[in-house]
Parts: sequence; structure tokens; C-alpha cells
Amino acid sequence: MAVTASERKRQAIASAALALFARDGYERTSVDAIAAEAGVSKRTVYSHYGDKERLFMLVVRDTYELMRERFEEAVETTMRDVDDVEKSLVSCLHEAVRAVTQTPERARLVRLITAELPRFPALLDLWHGRGLTPLLAAPIARLAAEGLLTADDPMEAAGHLSALTLGQINNRSMMGTIPLSQAETDRIITSGVRVFLRAYGPRPGDERC
Amino acid sequence: MAVTASERKRQAIASAALALFARDGYERTSVDAIAAEAGVSKRTVYSHYGDKERLFMLVVRDTYELMRERFEEAVETTMRDVDDVEKSLVSCLHEAVRAVTQTPERARLVRLITAELPRFPALLDLWHGRGLTPLLAAPIARLAAEGLLTADDPMEAAGHLSALTLGQINNRSMMGTIPLSQAETDRIITSGVRVFLRAYGPRPGDERC
Repeated sequence: MAVTASERKRQAIASAALALFARDGYERTSVDAIAAEAGVSKRTVYSHYGDKERLFMLVVRDTYELMRERFEEAVETTMRDVDDVEKSLVSCLHEAVRAVTQTPERARLVRLITAELPRFPALLDLWHGRGLTPLLAAPIARLAAEGLLTADDPMEAAGHLSALTLGQINNRSMMGTIPLSQAETDRIITSGVRVFLRAYGPRPGDERC
Repeated sequence: MAVTASERKRQAIASAALALFARDGYERTSVDAIAAEAGVSKRTVYSHYGDKERLFMLVVRDTYELMRERFEEAVETTMRDVDDVEKSLVSCLHEAVRAVTQTPERARLVRLITAELPRFPALLDLWHGRGLTPLLAAPIARLAAEGLLTADDPMEAAGHLSALTLGQINNRSMMGTIPLSQAETDRIITSGVRVFLRAYGPRPGDERC
């Protein structure tokens, strides 16, 4: 399906707005500057997004949702036909990390959200209500149903898998704002998955023998 | 030991500088404003800290080191005489979280570091080289030596314990910039420690039975 000129403009505005908001903060970014950066008129910005406040919230939400979709696709693709659980989880986390870190958007979003939260408390709902971790719960529940994992609470297990892998990467990279080497990313994912499987692997008999 | 007038002034300057840098960013914060906020002369700021660039780095470093010391003290106090490993780890993490989140400084530091890293790459060394996680390695090594844990690599185990508890709290609270309820903090620590012990608990025989 061809992208319309209107849609192209909308994307150009969103991308320009995200870059400028992240660089200069909400207060010091003008709609004029966004229009200039996007190569459109100020009027076009208003017709697509409304005022600056609405533009800000929509751009943050849309960028986040796009990232979330890419993450979900990575998880679903890698966890479709699982033969070796450890191998599948490792590639799942690799692809999921790649999906959210392949563009500068993540770091920009994090800067924006940490900086502007006092002004935009609705950002909190976005962060708490639409997190990425729950997206790992579905494949974990499937593996548990097949007896390949022991997880009575797949959502909690997803939180732990995420903490051991994505969480460690987030902490070392300060939510993606500090670069991390591929070697360190690999090491974190491999050892994190191994620990997750020691805690949640299938146990035929008594847990403690 | 009495705090000297000079030391009091130094602390007032550091506290004012941290608050203003975090609120307005490095570029838009003047030494004049810091002096006014601290109730001292501009000359006093320079005599204590040198120029604005040096002031910035010293204030970030000192604030971070103070937080790190409080964290270390919390860990060492709670892990001194361990009887029940799970109970001790839970109170260790509770106290450690309290130590770094009891003041607004943590959120300010995070905002500053994420925002100013491009200008001050030396902040990266601080974050990567002086992390809090290694402080958990010493008690884990002691517990492993006593046979209360199975951890061949105490530093890696510390990374996993941290990820399952502090890391989850960091992620949910966006590095401490979004408020988190006490109930959620409790839940994260309790379940994180439990998973850690499933993976690193003492195993008398074969790991998989």
C-alpha cells in the first residue's frame, strides 16, 4: 500500500518533533521550529496534531506504540515453534533488544519521559500500563502448558525474565542512553536466560529433590 | 565532629547546583544562580569548586558517591550475621532501596546523566565503573563460602540478584523518576529474592536431580 503524501508529512512532523523535544525539552521547543525541521508549514502541523501539548503526547504515544509493536513481533516470531527452550529464549531476547534499540528513538523517549513527567503525568500511564514485559507472558504461558517451563504465574515469570535480560541491559545502558557493546549485551542475555531456566525450568519431581 | 562553616557552604553549593542543573540542564544554569540559591557569593563558588564544568562533575560525582556509601552501609549492616538467607536478602534489598531513594537526589542524578552525557562522556565511567551491583558480591561470596548459596561467580550472581530486585524497581519507576508504591516495591523484592534463591540456592546433589 502506498504511503500518502499526508501520511508522509505526518511522519516527518512526528520525527522532527521527537528529535527537537528530546534535544531541547518541551518548554523550549516551538511549533515553528518543528515545522521548519519537518519541512512543512506551521499550519500543517496544527492540522495534523492540534496544539503543541497534544502534539507532544501523540508523538510520545505513537513512538512508544511503534516500538512496542516491533518488540511484540520479535517475540512472536522467535517463539513460534520452540524446540530448544534456552536457544529460543536467547534469540527472542536478542531480537527484542534489537527491535527497541535499533533507532535513536528509545533514548529520546526516555530523556523526554524522565524530563517532562512532572508536566505530563499521563506519561506515567503509558509507562506502567503498556509496558513491554507483559508481551513475554504469552510465550511463557504456552511453554508452561507444554511442560517445558514451570511457571504458575506467567506474568510474574515474564517480569523476572525481563529483569534478568532487558532490565540488566537497561541498567547498564541507563535506559539505552549510554552505549553498550554487543559482547556485553550477548553475555547479559545468555547468562540471564540460564538463571531464568534454573528458576523456572521443568522439574519432574520435588523442587529441592 | 563539628562541621566547619566552610564545609557547610560547600554542601549548600553542591545541593543548590544539583537542584538547578537537574531542573534547567547544564547549559542554562549559571554560576550566579547557583550562588544565589546557596546563599553565598559567586567568588565562594569558584573558590570551592573552580569553574562551572568542574563544579558540575564534582557535584555529580560526590552525590553519586554519597548514595553509593549509603547503599554499601545498608548492605553490610543487613548481611552481617545471616541466619535465614531469604529473610536477610529481603531486608538487605529493602534497606538498599531505601538508601538510594530516600532523597530526591537519585532522580536528579538520573535526569542529569541521561541529559548531559553527550557533553560529559566521563559520566559514563562513573556509571559503568562504580555501579552499585558489585557491592552485593561480597555478601554473596561469603554465603557461598558457607554453603548457603551456590554461586561460582559471585559478581555475576550479584548482577542477577540486582536485576531481579533493584533492576525491576528501576524499570518500573524509570530509574526512580516515576513514583512506585511501597506495596509494589515489597512485591518485587520478595518475589525477586525467591527466584534468585531458586537459581542460586544450595543444592546438595545434582542440580537437576
